[in-house]
Amino acid sequence: MLAEKIKPFFKELTERSGNVIRPFFFNENLAVEMKEDETPVTLADRQAETVLREHIRRNYPKHGIKGEEFPDENPDAEFVWILDPIDGTISFTHGCPLFGTLICLLHEGRPLAGAIHQPVIGHFLYGDGQETTLNDRTVQVRETSSLDEATLLTTDLGNIGRYQKRRAFDALAEKVKLFRTWGDCYGYHLLATGHADIMVDPILKPWDLMALIPVVKGAGGVITTWDGGDPLEGDSIVAANRFIHGRVLEALNA
Amino acid sequence: MLAEKIKPFFKELTERSGNVIRPFFFNENLAVEMKEDETPVTLADRQAETVLREHIRRNYPKHGIKGEEFPDENPDAEFVWILDPIDGTISFTHGCPLFGTLICLLHEGRPLAGAIHQPVIGHFLYGDGQETTLNDRTVQVRETSSLDEATLLTTDLGNIGRYQKRRAFDALAEKVKLFRTWGDCYGYHLLATGHADIMVDPILKPWDLMALIPVVKGAGGVITTWDGGDPLEGDSIVAANRFIHGRVLEALNA
Repeated sequence: MLAEKIKPFFKELTERSGNVIRPFFFNENLAVEMKEDETPVTLADRQAETVLREHIRRNYPKHGIKGEEFPDENPDAEFVWILDPIDGTISFTHGCPLFGTLICLLHEGRPLAGAIHQPVIGHFLYGDGQETTLNDRTVQVRETSSLDEATLLTTDLGNIGRYQKRRAFDALAEKVKLFRTWGDCYGYHLLATGHADIMVDPILKPWDLMALIPVVKGAGGVITTWDGGDPLEGDSIVAANRFIHGRVLEALNA
Repeated sequence: MLAEKIKPFFKELTERSGNVIRPFFFNENLAVEMKEDETPVTLADRQAETVLREHIRRNYPKHGIKGEEFPDENPDAEFVWILDPIDGTISFTHGCPLFGTLICLLHEGRPLAGAIHQPVIGHFLYGDGQETTLNDRTVQVRETSSLDEATLLTTDLGNIGRYQKRRAFDALAEKVKLFRTWGDCYGYHLLATGHADIMVDPILKPWDLMALIPVVKGAGGVITTWDGGDPLEGDSIVAANRFIHGRVLEALNA
């Protein structure tokens, strides 16, 4: 029952959050506050998370909700929603469209489905671990099988050296065909839709990574921590097409 | 006479090219060809340049036209249009929205006005060296006055070492608050609209840089070559707000 309704409900959610977020993009009056953890937040983040929470509560009052901007609601429920209204707030506040809304539904702690929504471009990427669709068209990772033909993405180059081996990363960046800091959820979006081959984040919070797992897996990609472990139990991500994921791990840990 | 009509005419041009380009973005059937100079080109580039040339010829039959994809027309005319239908073809073909259409009108070899158009986001940035507008709202570079508060952008990190001093660049990237490869014309767009402070390209072709000059200057920015010279006579760009441009040049040439 839930499974049938769930994709349209994700879409309804992102339509609501998108309507909130769009007018704030490139809005010169948008104020940026720094939170206690030194990450930025705006009115757009808070208002978008509010409309997401309201729509979930109205439709699934027994479900739990965890989000980046407000306290947990019913966090031990069988079904729990994980919300990040704007993943990539730094991009968003810099007028760069490489950001998105992340929504994940957990069943007993495991991701059942996830969505990455880019409200300015109008991309609704949805995955359930088996299949991933972009605006209802099935998408797949591409089949690049050698590192020197690959496109490598990450969010913040400075964070690589802070949390992982910078020298190993730089050697990989030299080896690949194209390296860019097209980051946050847009990097995983490009991987899952066959536009890039490798997306890595040396540090990531739980609400940033849950939605990515069913999206990347549904598109045929592999997603692990930096040392090859279960991403649900770590705080870093190496996501790649299945043909080169092993070689990427080797290179990053060399 | 020309001065009055010119901004609306630029807008008409970008509406036409935008209508051609949009359906090709994220289109899985888009084929990418490599040109003799090893830069990529697509049907979108060629069709967009074709509609631009047709509209110019119809309205200003005596003007010259130089573009990236077709031979020069009447290149010694008093007024010459410089066209780059898709600046950032690599971004475009990778599903990344950091690309745009560049249009410049030269009078006796000097840029009279330029436009950067982002057709997916709907941003029409227009500058005449005195004023720059984004969708008709006047924009200005921001007033960041220290490097450690600045946002630094470039297109391709690999090209820095190929054409300029990589070590000096890396030291600058370490010093600034934020460094990203949000590149091609979108980097200049972010500078001119007050979202970033420094945008540099270690190598650039004439059709890629002409339109940038009146846009950056009109927003109060400074644009030179890597060694501080006239950008019309070089093949590299250092653009920044006027408060830190001098210090950026020093850092890059250290």
